[in-house]
Amino acid sequence: MSIFGKLYFDGEWHQGQAGTYNAVDPSTAKNLEPAMGKASKAQVEAAVAAAHRDSLSFAKIPAAKRANFLRECATQIEALGDELTTRITLETGYPKGRGEGERARTCGQLRMFANSLDAGEFVDARIDTAQPDRTPVPKPDLRFMQQAIGPVAVFAVSNFPLAYSVAGGDTASALAAGCPVLAKGHLSHPGTGELVAQAIAKAIEICQMPKGVFSFLMGDDAEVGATLVQAAPVKAVGFTGSIAGGTALIKLANARPEPIPVFAEMGSVNPVILLPEALKTNAPAIAKGFVASLTLGTGQFCVNPGLVIAIDSPELNEFIQAVRAELGNVAAGVMLNQRICTSYQQGLTRFTHASGVASLAQGQADSVNEGFRAQAYLLGTSGKNFIAQDAIHEEVFGPAAMLVTCKDFTELQQVLEVLAGQLTGTLHGTETELLAHSALVDVLARKVGRVVVNGFPTGVEVCPSMVHGGPFPASSDPRFTAVGTAAIQRFQRPVCYQNFPDTLLPDALKNNNPLGLTRLVNGTPSNAALE
Amino acid sequence: MSIFGKLYFDGEWHQGQAGTYNAVDPSTAKNLEPAMGKASKAQVEAAVAAAHRDSLSFAKIPAAKRANFLRECATQIEALGDELTTRITLETGYPKGRGEGERARTCGQLRMFANSLDAGEFVDARIDTAQPDRTPVPKPDLRFMQQAIGPVAVFAVSNFPLAYSVAGGDTASALAAGCPVLAKGHLSHPGTGELVAQAIAKAIEICQMPKGVFSFLMGDDAEVGATLVQAAPVKAVGFTGSIAGGTALIKLANARPEPIPVFAEMGSVNPVILLPEALKTNAPAIAKGFVASLTLGTGQFCVNPGLVIAIDSPELNEFIQAVRAELGNVAAGVMLNQRICTSYQQGLTRFTHASGVASLAQGQADSVNEGFRAQAYLLGTSGKNFIAQDAIHEEVFGPAAMLVTCKDFTELQQVLEVLAGQLTGTLHGTETELLAHSALVDVLARKVGRVVVNGFPTGVEVCPSMVHGGPFPASSDPRFTAVGTAAIQRFQRPVCYQNFPDTLLPDALKNNNPLGLTRLVNGTPSNAALE
Repeated sequence: MSIFGKLYFDGEWHQGQAGTYNAVDPSTAKNLEPAMGKASKAQVEAAVAAAHRDSLSFAKIPAAKRANFLRECATQIEALGDELTTRITLETGYPKGRGEGERARTCGQLRMFANSLDAGEFVDARIDTAQPDRTPVPKPDLRFMQQAIGPVAVFAVSNFPLAYSVAGGDTASALAAGCPVLAKGHLSHPGTGELVAQAIAKAIEICQMPKGVFSFLMGDDAEVGATLVQAAPVKAVGFTGSIAGGTALIKLANARPEPIPVFAEMGSVNPVILLPEALKTNAPAIAKGFVASLTLGTGQFCVNPGLVIAIDSPELNEFIQAVRAELGNVAAGVMLNQRICTSYQQGLTRFTHASGVASLAQGQADSVNEGFRAQAYLLGTSGKNFIAQDAIHEEVFGPAAMLVTCKDFTELQQVLEVLAGQLTGTLHGTETELLAHSALVDVLARKVGRVVVNGFPTGVEVCPSMVHGGPFPASSDPRFTAVGTAAIQRFQRPVCYQNFPDTLLPDALKNNNPLGLTRLVNGTPSNAALE
Repeated sequence: MSIFGKLYFDGEWHQGQAGTYNAVDPSTAKNLEPAMGKASKAQVEAAVAAAHRDSLSFAKIPAAKRANFLRECATQIEALGDELTTRITLETGYPKGRGEGERARTCGQLRMFANSLDAGEFVDARIDTAQPDRTPVPKPDLRFMQQAIGPVAVFAVSNFPLAYSVAGGDTASALAAGCPVLAKGHLSHPGTGELVAQAIAKAIEICQMPKGVFSFLMGDDAEVGATLVQAAPVKAVGFTGSIAGGTALIKLANARPEPIPVFAEMGSVNPVILLPEALKTNAPAIAKGFVASLTLGTGQFCVNPGLVIAIDSPELNEFIQAVRAELGNVAAGVMLNQRICTSYQQGLTRFTHASGVASLAQGQADSVNEGFRAQAYLLGTSGKNFIAQDAIHEEVFGPAAMLVTCKDFTELQQVLEVLAGQLTGTLHGTETELLAHSALVDVLARKVGRVVVNGFPTGVEVCPSMVHGGPFPASSDPRFTAVGTAAIQRFQRPVCYQNFPDTLLPDALKNNNPLGLTRLVNGTPSNAALE
């Protein structure tokens, strides 16, 4: 395969009609070939029209066929081989192993949804049978199932060129739900996006899917992004990025004649609480784990541990010393693009200039002086000072964290209380002290989507129990997760069929249960046929 | 019991500090005693503070105890006896049987959620066990469950003084989820609201619930309603009413520093499609059923059939004749209040003055000349004319419907295509013609929450399979239903626990499965203990 700089929609590859641009290698700041075409508004609208046209036929395709399509997407992505991982490294500055890991995760994710489709998990089929003789009024026959919500616009993410981009979690869950996907590739890794789109295009052909089921569009946010969110046939949006970016999309979506949900996963500082006994018994190991988590991928993770909270003690000083030693071994890392790198430097400057904030430890300074590189930092402040300044609660995306030193448990709890919603919250403690302070778990469970004990928040497992989301601004709707099987619930809605003749019902709700589903029949789970 | 005109919050009854007002008997337009106190902003804030304070302790109360509380609420509502149903008739103009029916529905609803809590249905507990030896990275232990979202503001509804008001579906589902409820009573039926609040207050005492778990607040929309929606501790809103009212609340909720979901159930004309063979074989019976559904409760139902769509034919004329005869027997009905009555008259005037709209049949004119009464109407227009005028697609709340006569099937489908989202869509047809036109089912399933065959949309069954909701503007979020067991999903969000010691986990996720739940363990449903 090669990268042609083209767009894909309605089953064809198209030259972009709104000019071209080049991706940039962030390790050198040099342009990458080839020039990539940008979609015009008319091209985006054509893609939306194709998605709309095929929306119903795709939703009606049996789940087993949709599952095979998802598996074929995975197969075709794997078939891209080294070209894909090489391009990822060029476009992101990530080491090759990261691309390989992300590919495994992406393909595993597609197959996980396929398996769940085969198991019939998402239908939530329910049947309440008629009681014609009931008084004072007869009870009708009612049947309920989840259905596809309609075309979904997916915004590829800067920091996950595969797992949360063109064929990432949002795309996989929307396709699993039976929703056509309009994927806006990310300007930082358009070549990676195009390669993945080529794989999906092949899978569409092999599995004979309707042509409007998937589009790959590149271009400017204002033109491509806004057109997608405002298009009447689009029924939901998946986005991961900054609070400003997410908020802008939510505003557009709410201003539509028919408002639609935007599942935006935005800012989080992912507080890590170090309890005294844990520090006493384990400070060096915790410091080692913390620095590894903080600097992984040059700190460019939504669940990067950007806030550490602890009580003043000699052991905390020991922890700081250990972090200092560990960070001293960490070279300045490549960041994904110039904007992210600049934004990181600005955030650092803002924080270090804030009242009462000191720098406690640093990674190695940039010695390459080429491309976009970031030095890791641990800053520090007091609990009192943190509580007083909202501005230093913000996320600085990159390998920087703030250590908040509290004078006692009361102040530690006050620090937690002032935090906004978070993706994750972490507690380090011995079992005894965790139990003694179980109220902290309650506070965290109210603020975050995932509570971690004696670990670090990076490494988001893709499985049924994962929650990647949390109260605003961590995500725009904390009732849903963006990772794991439950992510599909974002793109479905229930429909009830009343008094339908059996022949007219969808298969999932027919009396003889042709799909072999476990259904809630008159309130009790059953996989039997009716009558 | 008596009605004292007081507010209830933080476990006490309070005199309203923002003046008083009197409810009005809509059948006479005369004031009802006693004078009812209105809540001041400070009183609303005190109620919110109590709800916030007790939010965590209520959420942690075992599901079985919450279930008993819901059952006690039902018992205490029943214990109000005739005083309640008499007051409903006084405040709404509904006949006594309607009050009795609604009481049965309300108490049945509370008990349905109690039973579902006992069955552990809503927890959606999931466990993925650790794989410490997995390569390249170990898999952590992850456990997922649904939890209460926090305090919920519930707006009582004009047309369901019990079933969708102070202890109605929104309140029952929020309490079932473990969320404190701040109920804003409806100005049309404050005495009914206070009686129900007295029943809940008694249940709180008997079941020793935290005092902040329920508040009953009366007062002006601007003051009480807006204060509730803007209060930081409030995490969701339940509302049923007009598109304008719902949209205003949604705007307020979106403008908060932390936006929250508003579950607004708003406008719907509930199209009823009459296919030719059904009319040929059954026109008089369909007309009879239609008029009964149209004029039930003086047409004051969200699912009132306000739009009939059919193809021109002699049988359609027969249907119109039959409707004319049936409507001639329907006396002008009492409407809930002056605003609704005026709004109905204005809507009728707007429609009858629209180009190409004629009056086809009328109910009896008002002969009482007292209170707020409405005459029923069937208006008519052509498919072409309907498609051309958005203004006549709107809901006119009350006993009026529009018959759209199409020249053929193509035009009938075009009429369906221009409709906005709806709560329900109904098809009358023989099985043969339904199968021949199954594409109509597909169109309706995309537009509505519930598709009815050979029946009428009124009579919303409260059961697991019900969907009461639909694409905008029928409801603000079509992924949820406001009626039935799934309504609880609006007030929960998932939390994931990673690497937790067993002792620190919530009971639902503990290894030995002390609640006996069916849990998704490593992807497979199981009610067994772990290890």
